[in-house]
Amino acid sequence: MADTVPRRPAVPRPGGRTARVRERIMDATVQLVGKHGLAGLRYDELAELAGVHKSSVYRNWPERETLVSEALRRYAAETAVLADTGDLRRDLVEFLVELAACIDSPTGRALQSAAHTGQQTPSVARAVAAVFEQRLAIMRTRVDAAVERGELPPVDVYFFGELLCSPVHLYLSRGVRPFTRAVAEQVTDVVLAGIRETARR
Amino acid sequence: MADTVPRRPAVPRPGGRTARVRERIMDATVQLVGKHGLAGLRYDELAELAGVHKSSVYRNWPERETLVSEALRRYAAETAVLADTGDLRRDLVEFLVELAACIDSPTGRALQSAAHTGQQTPSVARAVAAVFEQRLAIMRTRVDAAVERGELPPVDVYFFGELLCSPVHLYLSRGVRPFTRAVAEQVTDVVLAGIRETARR
Repeated sequence: MADTVPRRPAVPRPGGRTARVRERIMDATVQLVGKHGLAGLRYDELAELAGVHKSSVYRNWPERETLVSEALRRYAAETAVLADTGDLRRDLVEFLVELAACIDSPTGRALQSAAHTGQQTPSVARAVAAVFEQRLAIMRTRVDAAVERGELPPVDVYFFGELLCSPVHLYLSRGVRPFTRAVAEQVTDVVLAGIRETARR
Repeated sequence: MADTVPRRPAVPRPGGRTARVRERIMDATVQLVGKHGLAGLRYDELAELAGVHKSSVYRNWPERETLVSEALRRYAAETAVLADTGDLRRDLVEFLVELAACIDSPTGRALQSAAHTGQQTPSVARAVAAVFEQRLAIMRTRVDAAVERGELPPVDVYFFGELLCSPVHLYLSRGVRPFTRAVAEQVTDVVLAGIRETARR
């Protein structure tokens, strides 16, 4: 199988050769970032792992920042799904359970660690911020729908999202207790009850 | 001024020479851990900074783990004060504001970072765990008093503490918004209301 992509990038066809090559490069990027941290990503190692020519990586992502940013966004889009079943409590619990699984995966742990450490260059910081913006937008859409339906009083989405998600991060980074579904339910119940109760005052 | 400590450790007198030397060594340990991370702590650099002979450090703390652990506990005891004024909400807000200042200090940031990164050796992990245990014990004492006075329903102290403290960590690590007193009040109000409300169900 050819491992090159067209010189003049064609419009990617889902399932086409260009898309498959891109997919392999993204997978390899996430794997290597997980292994070495964001600062340790090398194009030659990446090309070898993805089974493509190094030039295929350089041609499509001349800027390392763009590649890492795209891989991080892809990681965020795949891992932080917040459904809208019409039941806010259920959707938030599911979201927290998935967020925990994602942070607790080897790649997730490495990315968290990269985001926290001095490896964080300005370009990496921008990519991490982009991932966060994406998650915040997803949370905003779901919260707006809940407010519209009267499931939730109007709320500062940033505050609400951080209050919900931060215990996941802290439970996992401490490693003292697992972040189970029961904990996700408890966090969601306390936060929802607290937001509703304080809005009444 | 002599920079040695007695060969046979005397009972430390507060304000005495032994206590002062110990104080300087602890300060220097926290400074250097802040600068190089926990794994980068070197006794020669430490002795120079503290203005003591290297042998003074080795004699009193033959195990690096004991030194780092003591410095970390001291840091925790100094920075995470949770008063009991009889007003739980006020005490918790004050605690969160101080926790934010402590995490946001150069030393605090470095310690957080060391706790999160691969620099974390088993001995460092034990010291970090000891700091956490100490904070949890402080939280338990305060929460028990509040439950006894009927200010709070019986609650899992670990869960309660993490729910309160984790937004501080996440706000500061993201760096998107500052963790202000207003946020501390909002977090405390929502968590207290949520805990009381869910306990009624």
